Amino acid sequence: MHRTEISVWTPATLANINVGFDGLGCALSGPGERLVMRRTDAVGCVNIRLIEGADLPLETSLNVAGVAAQSLLKALGNPCGLELDIFKEIKPGSGIGSSAASAAGAVFALNALLNAGLSPQALLTHALDGEALASGSRHADNVAPALMGGLVLCPPRGLPVSIPFPVDWHVVVLHPDVAIRTEDARKVLPENVSFKDAVDQARWLGVFTAGCYQGDGALAALALEDLLAGPHRAGLIPHFESIRNIAMRHGAIAGGISGSGPSTFWVTLTTDDSAQVAHELKAFMRNEGMACDIHQTRISARGSRIIE
Amino acid sequence: MHRTEISVWTPATLANINVGFDGLGCALSGPGERLVMRRTDAVGCVNIRLIEGADLPLETSLNVAGVAAQSLLKALGNPCGLELDIFKEIKPGSGIGSSAASAAGAVFALNALLNAGLSPQALLTHALDGEALASGSRHADNVAPALMGGLVLCPPRGLPVSIPFPVDWHVVVLHPDVAIRTEDARKVLPENVSFKDAVDQARWLGVFTAGCYQGDGALAALALEDLLAGPHRAGLIPHFESIRNIAMRHGAIAGGISGSGPSTFWVTLTTDDSAQVAHELKAFMRNEGMACDIHQTRISARGSRIIE
Repeated sequence: MHRTEISVWTPATLANINVGFDGLGCALSGPGERLVMRRTDAVGCVNIRLIEGADLPLETSLNVAGVAAQSLLKALGNPCGLELDIFKEIKPGSGIGSSAASAAGAVFALNALLNAGLSPQALLTHALDGEALASGSRHADNVAPALMGGLVLCPPRGLPVSIPFPVDWHVVVLHPDVAIRTEDARKVLPENVSFKDAVDQARWLGVFTAGCYQGDGALAALALEDLLAGPHRAGLIPHFESIRNIAMRHGAIAGGISGSGPSTFWVTLTTDDSAQVAHELKAFMRNEGMACDIHQTRISARGSRIIE
Repeated sequence: MHRTEISVWTPATLANINVGFDGLGCALSGPGERLVMRRTDAVGCVNIRLIEGADLPLETSLNVAGVAAQSLLKALGNPCGLELDIFKEIKPGSGIGSSAASAAGAVFALNALLNAGLSPQALLTHALDGEALASGSRHADNVAPALMGGLVLCPPRGLPVSIPFPVDWHVVVLHPDVAIRTEDARKVLPENVSFKDAVDQARWLGVFTAGCYQGDGALAALALEDLLAGPHRAGLIPHFESIRNIAMRHGAIAGGISGSGPSTFWVTLTTDDSAQVAHELKAFMRNEGMACDIHQTRISARGSRIIE
């Protein structure tokens, strides 16, 4: 007996995490995105019925979830049609994997709906077809953790590698109400970097990975250096230096730009520190007259999942 | 009761290992260097009595082992004088940590001779005083594994981190009889590299580290990419491409330049493959009329040690 409808929830994700530009991402415990998928008889057709929480195109070929679902549906031989309802809690352009959640959620839902039995890693290709629509590239550092959960390293070729994450890390995400498109955030990156920075960035990512495997959150935090992209992107984030100073002064042990911004993330070691950092950042943003969303969250082992 | 004489043996080391320029090194099971250290009454004086196996300066201030020993002796308050006999099996300038073995051996021997109780990591600073004499810089990627054994990641700041190494790797080292000074090998490196290569090199080092922790030698081997230094240095190694082709055709799964060359290293998974690669490389070098040394060795968990 086949399901005719399924609801899935897919987490927001942090990518880059300072030390692993284009190669490192993790799933968050929240916020997330809900997607309801129904079978229809319109074989091969994907129809987006509604999108709540964001002003995004309903046209399938212009919608990340639509493109991802269409790609996988075709690969499965177009056994049916699909209808999608999308409930976005992750704001598009926030830098915490809004499009990745749509892409991952769509392929995860379809795989479950049709009981197709593909692994998250096998689903990745089709999710990336959707993600590419939003970001202009096929980077998996948001999509892979959105699907698989946890902390994921994406090599330049080959499958993503799940690595242990520091379980004592809390994360505060500050999303200021300004838009930075991924493509625009790429334009500020230099074509070349110094040999020394390249060498040192690799060493930091190696040490970060070692810290994660050793369960040494302090070593992992020490290694959260961003020598390549961060210095060029900080100027795109309003008040970045002030935000950084406030977060670090009130209990954050590390942090930086989330994905391509404008969100920033701040790591703390306790719920209390997280609450304090969130409180201070909120007060600062209010004083500056800037609207923002703040998420107090954690790294989560869980990616896309079926919900009731 | 104090010892008056001690003999130590310190292994050769592979640094860079393609994927971790200036930040990654491992101890080999051989070759190595023996150092005999004796107490003397000439307080604060380090005297090198003999060096066998290499034409190196006996003058303390010009000798890596001398400078390292002097540095640590001074830090310990110059409680005595020292006399050193050095038996080099690792050829200077070979690219497998000849100077690092001298520097590491000297501080390890002195620590043991005086029962000073310093950890290998605490000894590192003084060993680097010696290493800097030879290489012009204080990189620990040979010295740290020479002291500590195993596979070691050196962050841009902070202490070296030991990580698990692929236990099934065998290593063939081919040392052609040409000299490349570390300083000269640095001169061919570019000042800048592409942003993409920098990002990808970091991802490879992260994935290599993950592969090591997961005991996944195939993943670690896949990640042995050298995007930063290798392409610029290959031209310094006579017949590098031919050597590479021969090694890979006869059982090597990965390999590249050892340290700053001229040695190259080739990873295999069995003793037989190692023997085959060594045999073929020897035949090739003979045909080319080039003298060489070939070592069939392994990564070793052990660094400097006391011998009878």
